[in-house]
Amino acid sequence: MHASNELLYLILLIVAARAGGEISERFHQPAVFGEIVAGIVLGIIPALHPAVDSEAIMFVAEIGVILLLFEVGLESELADFLKVGAPAALVAAIGVVLPLFLGFGAMRLLGYDTYIALFLGATLTATSVGITARVFNDLRMMHRKEAKIVIGAAVVDDILGLLVLSVVLGLVGGAALRVIDVGRTVGMAVAFLVAAIVIGHRAAPFLISLTRKMRGRGVLVVSAFGFGLVVAYLGSLLGLAAIVGAFAAGLVLASTEDRVHITEKIQPVADIFVPVFFAQVGMRVDLGLLNPARPENWPVLGLGAVLLAIAIPTKLASGLGAIKQRADKLTIGIGMVPRGEVGLIFASIGLHNAILNQSVYGAVILVLLVTTLMTPPWLKHRLSRVQKKAKETDQRQR
Amino acid sequence: MHASNELLYLILLIVAARAGGEISERFHQPAVFGEIVAGIVLGIIPALHPAVDSEAIMFVAEIGVILLLFEVGLESELADFLKVGAPAALVAAIGVVLPLFLGFGAMRLLGYDTYIALFLGATLTATSVGITARVFNDLRMMHRKEAKIVIGAAVVDDILGLLVLSVVLGLVGGAALRVIDVGRTVGMAVAFLVAAIVIGHRAAPFLISLTRKMRGRGVLVVSAFGFGLVVAYLGSLLGLAAIVGAFAAGLVLASTEDRVHITEKIQPVADIFVPVFFAQVGMRVDLGLLNPARPENWPVLGLGAVLLAIAIPTKLASGLGAIKQRADKLTIGIGMVPRGEVGLIFASIGLHNAILNQSVYGAVILVLLVTTLMTPPWLKHRLSRVQKKAKETDQRQR
Repeated sequence: MHASNELLYLILLIVAARAGGEISERFHQPAVFGEIVAGIVLGIIPALHPAVDSEAIMFVAEIGVILLLFEVGLESELADFLKVGAPAALVAAIGVVLPLFLGFGAMRLLGYDTYIALFLGATLTATSVGITARVFNDLRMMHRKEAKIVIGAAVVDDILGLLVLSVVLGLVGGAALRVIDVGRTVGMAVAFLVAAIVIGHRAAPFLISLTRKMRGRGVLVVSAFGFGLVVAYLGSLLGLAAIVGAFAAGLVLASTEDRVHITEKIQPVADIFVPVFFAQVGMRVDLGLLNPARPENWPVLGLGAVLLAIAIPTKLASGLGAIKQRADKLTIGIGMVPRGEVGLIFASIGLHNAILNQSVYGAVILVLLVTTLMTPPWLKHRLSRVQKKAKETDQRQR
Repeated sequence: MHASNELLYLILLIVAARAGGEISERFHQPAVFGEIVAGIVLGIIPALHPAVDSEAIMFVAEIGVILLLFEVGLESELADFLKVGAPAALVAAIGVVLPLFLGFGAMRLLGYDTYIALFLGATLTATSVGITARVFNDLRMMHRKEAKIVIGAAVVDDILGLLVLSVVLGLVGGAALRVIDVGRTVGMAVAFLVAAIVIGHRAAPFLISLTRKMRGRGVLVVSAFGFGLVVAYLGSLLGLAAIVGAFAAGLVLASTEDRVHITEKIQPVADIFVPVFFAQVGMRVDLGLLNPARPENWPVLGLGAVLLAIAIPTKLASGLGAIKQRADKLTIGIGMVPRGEVGLIFASIGLHNAILNQSVYGAVILVLLVTTLMTPPWLKHRLSRVQKKAKETDQRQR
């Protein structure tokens, strides 16, 4: 058996991500920032264009982001999330409603068609929580209330995204939009999540005791990982993001007595594959659409700038939803800023249905790129300020 | 981001492998046997046929077998292999020469053309060491001399396979076979292996001290894994199997002071991906070619039986090459029996050049299947007998 080209791509992504992450950390920035930039650099190299569309590499990256949220779940307490359920839901709701309506309105004002305006508004709704989770995780701040609220909001956000998607697709499809259909889609997703956690909570000890009865090496880590994949996959069949299912699975296993052991074994697997995901995200950015030296890109960049001017403040404002919480609202807002694949999915559907054109698609890419790259440094900076302030208050009180 | 079909295939492979491995161990057979059988069962399901050719799944399986040999390298001592270098080389030589010439002769006797006979002989030469390494590893017997000799022989075997491939392709290509070309191919592979180990041995402490200077989580495991992939890939560019390079990389890292730490972190990764490889190997077996209920398969099965009658005894005889060693020759011979992808590569090249036809290809598949499935139970059985005998001798001497 001889090595494939994919092996070379994987090596390059691993090495570039490590180098980028390292440089990033030397400049006191989160590793994930450098990993994405390193991926963008790889994406520029013409010889690596086959890597961009490699299904094998995309799959390994998918495993990476699933592992990230699975690990975040494993290191969390369900109770902590339930405690912040209400503020998290409010943060998510503001973070979906504001960009949707303001985006729609602004695009209408710019003279875009109703459907185009609707689609562009929708592309701005979904937070991509991977980046934020990674930053909190790397800074060992997953225990902070802000982290719980952002992750909780991301779960609600994903469900709201499903709602937006059904409604927008229904409107565009021209069929009479039946509330019952939309309700069913969303209801099933919610029911799945609740069932996964409630049933999982009861089934997990059984799974663990089953692994105790099994022979062979690594039974616990294989079973835990398999469980994470199964919940991720089942949730995705109902329209949830795979990472939401993976997070729920981790949360469930976190309540078992083998939690520490599982986390310890999953960590090295995550250490290897998580950076591959972020470098691959960078590699897939098509910089050609954003090159300001090409005059044909100017309208793209202009539209992108307008979208950014809506995308960023609206998500920052979502942090205000964390009412009556001892949590920094700006930290939460920053954590909600990054947009990712869900925005791309909306844009692709729009492109596919000839509602959006390539240049609008380019503008969406700009939003993803800027919000993704600005979050890690900003979030880290804000968190250190919050911590410093907390220390000062602490000292003054003494 | 929603989950792909590949995720479902991966889940099925992981779950089937675990179930198969478990059942296998309940019957006191090595887990790998059940993993392959479980894969064969998955391969029968029509809905899973896309999984068989999925590049993503093949890639994950490739990572799995690389991890297996990387870990075997990590848990070995270079000195142990150098000590058994001569007998291992002799075992490999016998195991290549005997099946090649006896296979060629038998096929000529059966009336096959010279080239077909040559190709079929060549398909029988290469040992697929993954199975054997896995069995020794699972039984925690990698420290035994027999294991060292078989793994060492597999490395030499891979180089000899390169030699056979160049010669056979040269003959078939019709060009004058230039000894210098063949010599260069083989020389470069040998030079790479020696260089990888010698340079790697000196570079590894540097790599390790570099990881100490790096920040971020999991630097050591990522660097070690990356190193393994790089050596595997570079070796494969020179025609070596990726697993031979991975083994060499593991061997090099085994000499560093962080060996225990690296092994500990690599193990859970291997635990997850290694069984996927073996289940995938099973899934790719096309049972349709071997169904005895179809009369058109009878010549295939007949030819396969003849090939097996040569393939098995010749590799068993190769164990006799372990002269002047306190090692069980039959154990070594059994360990050399399994054939794998290299045989398939030969057969595919023959098929591609219209030298072999589909039915001959089917016969080769039968050889791979039978030798792969017979090895784990037989090897385990033989090893327990050898251990029992050793204990008896021990007691008598007291």
